[in-house]
Amino acid sequence: MKDVKAYIEANKDRFLEELFELIRIPSISAESEHKDDMVRCANKWKEYLLAAGCDRAEVMPSAGNPVVYGEKIIDPAKPTVLVYGHYDVMPVAPLELWRTQPFEPVVKDGRIWARGADDDKGQSFMQAKAFEFMVKTGQLPCNVKFMLEGEEEIGSGSLYGFCEEHKEMLKSDVILVSDTSMIAPDVPSITSGLRGLCYWDVEVTGANHDLHSGIYGGAVANPIIILSKMIAGLHDENGHITIPGFYDDVLVISDEERALMAQAPFDEEAYKRELDIRTVHGEKGYTTKERTGIRPCLDVCGIWGGHTGEGSKTVLPSKAYAKISTRLVANQDYNKISKLFKDYFEAAAPECVRVKVTPSHGGAAYVCPMDTKAYRAAEKAMTETYGKRPIPTRSGGSIPIVAGFERILGVKSVLMGFGLGSDDIHAPNENYPLEQFLKGIETIPYFYKYFAE
Amino acid sequence: MKDVKAYIEANKDRFLEELFELIRIPSISAESEHKDDMVRCANKWKEYLLAAGCDRAEVMPSAGNPVVYGEKIIDPAKPTVLVYGHYDVMPVAPLELWRTQPFEPVVKDGRIWARGADDDKGQSFMQAKAFEFMVKTGQLPCNVKFMLEGEEEIGSGSLYGFCEEHKEMLKSDVILVSDTSMIAPDVPSITSGLRGLCYWDVEVTGANHDLHSGIYGGAVANPIIILSKMIAGLHDENGHITIPGFYDDVLVISDEERALMAQAPFDEEAYKRELDIRTVHGEKGYTTKERTGIRPCLDVCGIWGGHTGEGSKTVLPSKAYAKISTRLVANQDYNKISKLFKDYFEAAAPECVRVKVTPSHGGAAYVCPMDTKAYRAAEKAMTETYGKRPIPTRSGGSIPIVAGFERILGVKSVLMGFGLGSDDIHAPNENYPLEQFLKGIETIPYFYKYFAE
Repeated sequence: MKDVKAYIEANKDRFLEELFELIRIPSISAESEHKDDMVRCANKWKEYLLAAGCDRAEVMPSAGNPVVYGEKIIDPAKPTVLVYGHYDVMPVAPLELWRTQPFEPVVKDGRIWARGADDDKGQSFMQAKAFEFMVKTGQLPCNVKFMLEGEEEIGSGSLYGFCEEHKEMLKSDVILVSDTSMIAPDVPSITSGLRGLCYWDVEVTGANHDLHSGIYGGAVANPIIILSKMIAGLHDENGHITIPGFYDDVLVISDEERALMAQAPFDEEAYKRELDIRTVHGEKGYTTKERTGIRPCLDVCGIWGGHTGEGSKTVLPSKAYAKISTRLVANQDYNKISKLFKDYFEAAAPECVRVKVTPSHGGAAYVCPMDTKAYRAAEKAMTETYGKRPIPTRSGGSIPIVAGFERILGVKSVLMGFGLGSDDIHAPNENYPLEQFLKGIETIPYFYKYFAE
Repeated sequence: MKDVKAYIEANKDRFLEELFELIRIPSISAESEHKDDMVRCANKWKEYLLAAGCDRAEVMPSAGNPVVYGEKIIDPAKPTVLVYGHYDVMPVAPLELWRTQPFEPVVKDGRIWARGADDDKGQSFMQAKAFEFMVKTGQLPCNVKFMLEGEEEIGSGSLYGFCEEHKEMLKSDVILVSDTSMIAPDVPSITSGLRGLCYWDVEVTGANHDLHSGIYGGAVANPIIILSKMIAGLHDENGHITIPGFYDDVLVISDEERALMAQAPFDEEAYKRELDIRTVHGEKGYTTKERTGIRPCLDVCGIWGGHTGEGSKTVLPSKAYAKISTRLVANQDYNKISKLFKDYFEAAAPECVRVKVTPSHGGAAYVCPMDTKAYRAAEKAMTETYGKRPIPTRSGGSIPIVAGFERILGVKSVLMGFGLGSDDIHAPNENYPLEQFLKGIETIPYFYKYFAE
């Protein structure tokens, strides 16, 4: 890929200006008041795809937020790469913990600070700029299609139907995704597996209204205490999840594979230091990397009930709520898990309360074997620009739609992401190192080159 | 008390208008933005006390919100009644559950609907209007002092010091309080005991910032889950509180006294129907009335952490919080309990998190024996207006300062309240039946009459 470094050097200030315009649109899919921002963000993407060299780009309707589609077909006989990304971002609360405004990107200490700087505006924008480079320098070796959705952070609910409806338009030989992390700036890696996801909203109701905790306390069930007991019961003393049947479909990883995975560099002391924790905590019998890579887990992402404001209100609340999620591994069916949990948790409710479980979103786990042409092309591309062979990793995170692509479109995805563990995606002070952003733009064209060979 | 009914009938519209002016001032002591409202409310009270017949009334400084003091001394040789009440009210959240605006009082279905309608603006205002009646009709048989504080709902923190400082001014033979409930409109009762209170703020910290639940989930402790386990462990399977030493000072009530208390009318089916619960829930071996009257209890008044908004944010939060309170019975020392809990809960924290317990407020339990002149005067007053002898009850609620009065001023309090269990004090849609409000004004003068005899 001739002159890629020079092209990036000459244009990087413009790249950042364009990315910042995208970031400034607060496209938070989880919050309904941002509906208009979703449309604005999609239109901005359409504009950028046309400017980068697409022959055609459209903001297309879906059952929910619109999908941006663009394409450049150079020769139907050549292979086609479908680039997938998302233009929606996570909510920003708690705002008081941000050191800069989440939607006012700034570059400081070599990093871009903003919501979406990495996930996924920064990463998907690398794809657009790598494409621009290949078009403008006459080196594009494949047909390219872009698909950017606006619901990834809330489960890609509408994209499954969109894919079903537009199978022909989306026909491709590989799906290329930059929405994952690599081990370290000098340790390239490719995500060969993703955990699946199940998410539920839980509501526990005691009395039909908030009560005075003095007059009723001790005689009427406290839904916060009951919910706490029910949550406490979801793990046993070894950190195993207690939902009957939960582990039934989990594939046992061979000792050999576990030994190979253990070779990836990992400094547990540094990990603890960075998080300021005295000890890691998880399922007995597994290492930290295994706990997040090859084992499922269950977390409570949110809880609330009663008086949560200032002062000491003495209330026996009527309701308590929680948001509970599990991460699933290959072979676990999220629909089955979704039902298992709902049935178990509702049945576990004592008679003194009423419990309602509402599944919100979910998705299957995904594995991309190393012996595919697509994986090998990504491996060669990273070897080219990093000077060393990338390590295959299993990510703890989930991109449920990736398993959906395989099911609906029959195409494997390659997860070549340039994020870092320290980017704080989904948290306050999300950031993306400039070096990763630029190295991504440099590396992606080589994927096209090797995939076209 | 001649013509009391006629006086009330002739003036009740004005009574309501005056009360409504008091209610419209949102004097929420737990929320610092209402500091000015506290002062406005205190000044309104001063105006009302002077208008009702006090010789002197003042808004006096304390370490916190001001205290309203007023007095009418007719003859130093006569007994002196110190009326205590509070002009502060509880917070109103969740506002969406209110059917009317909390600070826009309306009369509907025979009830006054508003925050403070009962607790304690409505009830303390009965005292002012009963006093007005006695003054205006020349029937006042005792000296009267009024003391209204602005911090009852946050623990009366400044009133202890105020009482120490003004012992001489506050000298009296009995303290009369209308801030409790009676059994039913046709079943008068007097609160002969109050539970004490201890309240703590709890904070559990895992990692030093919110994490992506996919990337870290399963390997880093989730503070919501740890907090849930710690809360779950505060009661055993019989509903006993597990804090070591918690029950050490609880006085065992004799079988005879329990049998007497059991004679108070109580319809558990109606209780469950009213609260829409399938079953009551509490300490094994005790009835519902005993659980709220003679036994201590522990409640979680609030809990929060992680994502509590719309949508399904996949976060492994850094922090989880709870507000935990206990109700104490006679002979339990709240300072001792406060320390017991803090020590126990902090020590119970597993190594993977940090736990901080901050005691907020507390107060001792209180008992007023039936064989005092003060209790007997209240009993006769109610018998006079209700035509039946009131039942002595133990309230589950707490008015910590009442035990403080006994300690600092050396005077017993009589808790002659006219609230009902259905008044939803501390909850949305607080209300106070007009009939109770007017019957209170009618009954109070008889207390003065019999106490002066």
